Amino acid sequence: MDASDLVFATADEHRAWLEQQARLPRGFSVGTASFAFTPVEVPLPARMTLSLIVCDRPTSDFAAVFTRNAFPGAPVRIGRERLHEPDLAAVVVNNKISNVCANDGIAAAERICATTAHLLGFTARQVLPASTGVIGWRLPVADMEAALPEAVATLQDRSALPAANGIMTTDLYPKVRGVDLPGGGRVVGIAKGAGMIEPNLATMLVYILTDCAIGREQLREQLRAAVAESFNAISIDSDQSTSDSVVAIASGRCPCPDQAAFAAALGRVCRQLAGDVVRNGEGVHHVIRCTVTGAPDTACARGTAKAVINSPLVKTAIAGNDPNVGRLIMAVGKHLGDHHGELEPTRCSIRLGPETVFADGTFRFDSGTDARLQAYLGAAQLYQSASPGTDGVFRPPISHPPHERCVEIAVDLDAGPARFTALGGDLTHEYISENADYRS
Amino acid sequence: MDASDLVFATADEHRAWLEQQARLPRGFSVGTASFAFTPVEVPLPARMTLSLIVCDRPTSDFAAVFTRNAFPGAPVRIGRERLHEPDLAAVVVNNKISNVCANDGIAAAERICATTAHLLGFTARQVLPASTGVIGWRLPVADMEAALPEAVATLQDRSALPAANGIMTTDLYPKVRGVDLPGGGRVVGIAKGAGMIEPNLATMLVYILTDCAIGREQLREQLRAAVAESFNAISIDSDQSTSDSVVAIASGRCPCPDQAAFAAALGRVCRQLAGDVVRNGEGVHHVIRCTVTGAPDTACARGTAKAVINSPLVKTAIAGNDPNVGRLIMAVGKHLGDHHGELEPTRCSIRLGPETVFADGTFRFDSGTDARLQAYLGAAQLYQSASPGTDGVFRPPISHPPHERCVEIAVDLDAGPARFTALGGDLTHEYISENADYRS
Repeated sequence: MDASDLVFATADEHRAWLEQQARLPRGFSVGTASFAFTPVEVPLPARMTLSLIVCDRPTSDFAAVFTRNAFPGAPVRIGRERLHEPDLAAVVVNNKISNVCANDGIAAAERICATTAHLLGFTARQVLPASTGVIGWRLPVADMEAALPEAVATLQDRSALPAANGIMTTDLYPKVRGVDLPGGGRVVGIAKGAGMIEPNLATMLVYILTDCAIGREQLREQLRAAVAESFNAISIDSDQSTSDSVVAIASGRCPCPDQAAFAAALGRVCRQLAGDVVRNGEGVHHVIRCTVTGAPDTACARGTAKAVINSPLVKTAIAGNDPNVGRLIMAVGKHLGDHHGELEPTRCSIRLGPETVFADGTFRFDSGTDARLQAYLGAAQLYQSASPGTDGVFRPPISHPPHERCVEIAVDLDAGPARFTALGGDLTHEYISENADYRS
Repeated sequence: MDASDLVFATADEHRAWLEQQARLPRGFSVGTASFAFTPVEVPLPARMTLSLIVCDRPTSDFAAVFTRNAFPGAPVRIGRERLHEPDLAAVVVNNKISNVCANDGIAAAERICATTAHLLGFTARQVLPASTGVIGWRLPVADMEAALPEAVATLQDRSALPAANGIMTTDLYPKVRGVDLPGGGRVVGIAKGAGMIEPNLATMLVYILTDCAIGREQLREQLRAAVAESFNAISIDSDQSTSDSVVAIASGRCPCPDQAAFAAALGRVCRQLAGDVVRNGEGVHHVIRCTVTGAPDTACARGTAKAVINSPLVKTAIAGNDPNVGRLIMAVGKHLGDHHGELEPTRCSIRLGPETVFADGTFRFDSGTDARLQAYLGAAQLYQSASPGTDGVFRPPISHPPHERCVEIAVDLDAGPARFTALGGDLTHEYISENADYRS
């Protein structure tokens, strides 16, 4: 993930920056519509937003990567089929209900596609559906169809921001990243996702739009590569959603002689959005970036890095600004002991921020180190918990990311050439409140 | 894990029951000593308890199973060597500091063994050390040596309870289980451990004492088998300690003609203690028992059951008494999608308590189901959170387990003969407070 010195003093500053990032590439427009409805399963008032991403004309150049969960949502099952279609013209996304394992879920999603296509003058198979939210509930198809004309009426070709807002569920703020290519052309991505995030994607929807003329096969290959080192390298809570999708669409309106420059821009947008998803992860106070080097192979490097960022005890220690090196050792040792008994653990060294805290089989640690690392962890904190309300619920007191600093953990196994960087978040009262104190 | 209707209305009732359980088999005595000291690494006042378990005479019949963590504590490394010794006569355990990866950790532990042996008239190699607590700090060897005579002076042969109390760290209450064999003889086990608990053991120390005449090799074989289906089937937070040890010692004072009866008693004590460890897990409001049947092999059954009990989103939903079937599906699907792509997920059915909530690829769920399952989850709750103190820290409002009810989750994969039952806990504000709000 790219380092960054971005600092946003206020929500207004962040919003102004988002608007810059969100400028749409040529050939795309975006519209949304929100409405109230009552779910069949839990008959309490709810609200849904429909977001449309529309191409000026159908394009053959689109790519998508989906969750590996064995119970994929209906839109994911349809999306896998759409990959075989000759072209794509629009994406229709709803939040609030994820349409996973619901009765007649496929028929419901196809119905929404058909209505969308009819309004836009395309065919249903040129429309890709997506849903995110509660698992198991059924889509309010009639309410959605009634709202679609409004979404079409709001289509505009300037900003992706309305869609970045529209696809949010428990996200605190929209996530948008844009990159201009040196030779012309632009790549813009939007993402939602805050919990149930782990590799192979997670309640995460990502849409990447470009006007660069990039062929279907190249786009698919480059998307796979970009996802491997971005969205598949993050974890909020090790859980993997049934709906995750990363979709890229190229309108072809701008020549793209330099494929490597496009790949770099795509990779950058994916890495930045992946960082944004973790930074806005449910209850995340600290983003944790663990880089494992010196591994015998990539699987070992990835597994070790994941063991660190997924360890509840490491995550809670960092949440408390506690440089608890013992828990780092425990997490690394748990993975190595289970999977790499042949490695010599005393060759391992570990750095936390600027300090080497473990080497030659023993801790490098005194009360001075402790104070310095507490300060380092404090400086990387995105926010401190506010007092819970009278209902005992902890609510994040921020509506924008104040900075992009990470807690850096570097593990050198000194046993080979492979490396991997994984990005995760800490574990806090806000995560518990979000997921236990009320139904999400 | 054995079902149980045990209910304890008051802490006094629980204590009286513990005292019954704790009656020592013949041939053992137990003593403890507590003292104040100041750790070198973080110079704040601390308290340590030393616990001694002493055999009347050295016995060749002892067994031990240790953590698989690649960074085992010094006592674990010494313990592995002690398994090759001809006999064992005593165990010396300290809490507060785990003596893992500390400078001169082996020498410190051996010094404590030597002093203990000297006081008791044994050799150092007849003494097994153990330490639990903060990782990385050094043992206060001089303070411990000064306290050992008091521990020896308090030795008594009636109750294991002082040691069950003495080895606790963040445990809320001591854990003791005793079983009398039909033909005479007794098996008593004590356990500590509340966090960093996952299979292959975890900041967990278990000592099982018996007066049954059971040979060294049989004892070792039976202990391995008992651990596989008890301590290796539990997880509080998927983290694995660097210090976990399960030790069994037989004094041989009582003939044991029925080896099967002994194995059954040993298995029962292990399963009950494993249940106790989860029930007293850090912040646990609900014990979750997930049984996977119909798996093609045991690894698949174990992996699926573990995916369910380790899923933060399942754990937080259950903490909130929320029968969130979507998250169950997600957790099962995450494991199957990653490891068993060949299985047909629509054959899977899932029960939560008394209700089938998923079958034939769709949810079986309405608002009536929801209300019934909320009541079921509420009845299995051990306690509700008390309001946090003015310091914002959540403290468990109980000092004994009110009952032994579990939340039962049954997953039938309908794809083979294998099964596995895993036991875990939910994830609550008290876990966060224990691990993030202050240093433990």
